[in-house]
Amino acid sequence: MVAPTLSFENEVFAKFAFYAGVVLLKTVIMSGWTARYRLPRGVFISSEDYVGRSGQTMKIDEDVERTRRCHLNDIENVLPFVLIGLLYVLTGPTVASATLHFRLFAGFRLFHTIAYMFILPQPSRAIAFFVGFGVNISMAITVIRAGMF
Amino acid sequence: MVAPTLSFENEVFAKFAFYAGVVLLKTVIMSGWTARYRLPRGVFISSEDYVGRSGQTMKIDEDVERTRRCHLNDIENVLPFVLIGLLYVLTGPTVASATLHFRLFAGFRLFHTIAYMFILPQPSRAIAFFVGFGVNISMAITVIRAGMF
Amino acid sequence: MVAPTLSFENEVFAKFAFYAGVVLLKTVIMSGWTARYRLPRGVFISSEDYVGRSGQTMKIDEDVERTRRCHLNDIENVLPFVLIGLLYVLTGPTVASATLHFRLFAGFRLFHTIAYMFILPQPSRAIAFFVGFGVNISMAITVIRAGMF
Repeated sequence: MVAPTLSFENEVFAKFAFYAGVVLLKTVIMSGWTARYRLPRGVFISSEDYVGRSGQTMKIDEDVERTRRCHLNDIENVLPFVLIGLLYVLTGPTVASATLHFRLFAGFRLFHTIAYMFILPQPSRAIAFFVGFGVNISMAITVIRAGMF
Repeated sequence: MVAPTLSFENEVFAKFAFYAGVVLLKTVIMSGWTARYRLPRGVFISSEDYVGRSGQTMKIDEDVERTRRCHLNDIENVLPFVLIGLLYVLTGPTVASATLHFRLFAGFRLFHTIAYMFILPQPSRAIAFFVGFGVNISMAITVIRAGMF
Repeated sequence: MVAPTLSFENEVFAKFAFYAGVVLLKTVIMSGWTARYRLPRGVFISSEDYVGRSGQTMKIDEDVERTRRCHLNDIENVLPFVLIGLLYVLTGPTVASATLHFRLFAGFRLFHTIAYMFILPQPSRAIAFFVGFGVNISMAITVIRAGMF
């Protein structure tokens, strides 16, 4: 009997779940990373969070803002990757082609975070962004073609 | 015959679909909630929305901004929950363990919205956030381990 | 033998994958669209991106901001559509009902982008938004009811 497409016995799906799990975990961790800056520095997002903290007023912190931008960039790229990737797995790609897509995306996404948070000189962040962008476009076109016919 | 993992005959999936549906519905409703404040108060997001509204200029409304922050927080937490949760269902968890994860996330997420919109004193919103954060981390690790071997 | 629900042999799923692929592709393209404005105009998101660009300081560009708002609106609407839609496909809707939901959402979402980027007079953008909103609510309720019983 053939294993269902969406099962860990299917090598393409198992690889997808692994890489999707890694980049989703990274995205979720960005929330906690923001909180780690906010609390010790007393930089909060809502005016009501300052109640009872005398002498503190709303302010902009450069590191908090950088973490937030990095997090939003993940939301804009990682979530579409997982959604497109899941549909792409169902088109039945070869293991080689699928693994190439997933590895490129996950590798350059981790590098994107490092480039953002440790302020590596451009174009490192731009390259990391465009590789992920290309992977998403490539998988989306495969899905649309499979759904069309 | 065993029911497919992703079918409503599988109790784990049915529970996941129910709780995921509830938190997704809540997230989508936040968009309409913002609109409900914007229209009567004449507070719009784009300068072109003010065309033909004499005497109105772009302004910041505290309630609109709070609703938007609450909505963005849902985007950052609910969408990863549904994606990680779907992969987690495919790892074949026990009904008890899966239900605990889904209930904790959905319950504290609804509480998070109440705490945000009705401005409950901290740390209520922080606790609500961190419970959901923990559920997502726990499920993501389960998925990564299942995909690794 | 009946084809699995999540396979391109299932007409409802194939249509879903097609329309989900189209709106996800559109969402991903919005990132590149922002970059297309940023680079020639020298309008960047992080202060470190200005290093080595003498005479340029951080500024707000109306077109960049419009593209970003349009992109964020996609994130808030398209990603929930794909997640709710996938669960909705698993509730086993009729082809006619499912196609109506997917087509309405995808058609009005493309129109939303046109209305936003080419600044069509309101309420064109508002109508486009509310049709997609209604489709998401309708599918979410179907999913919740299926998961409840």
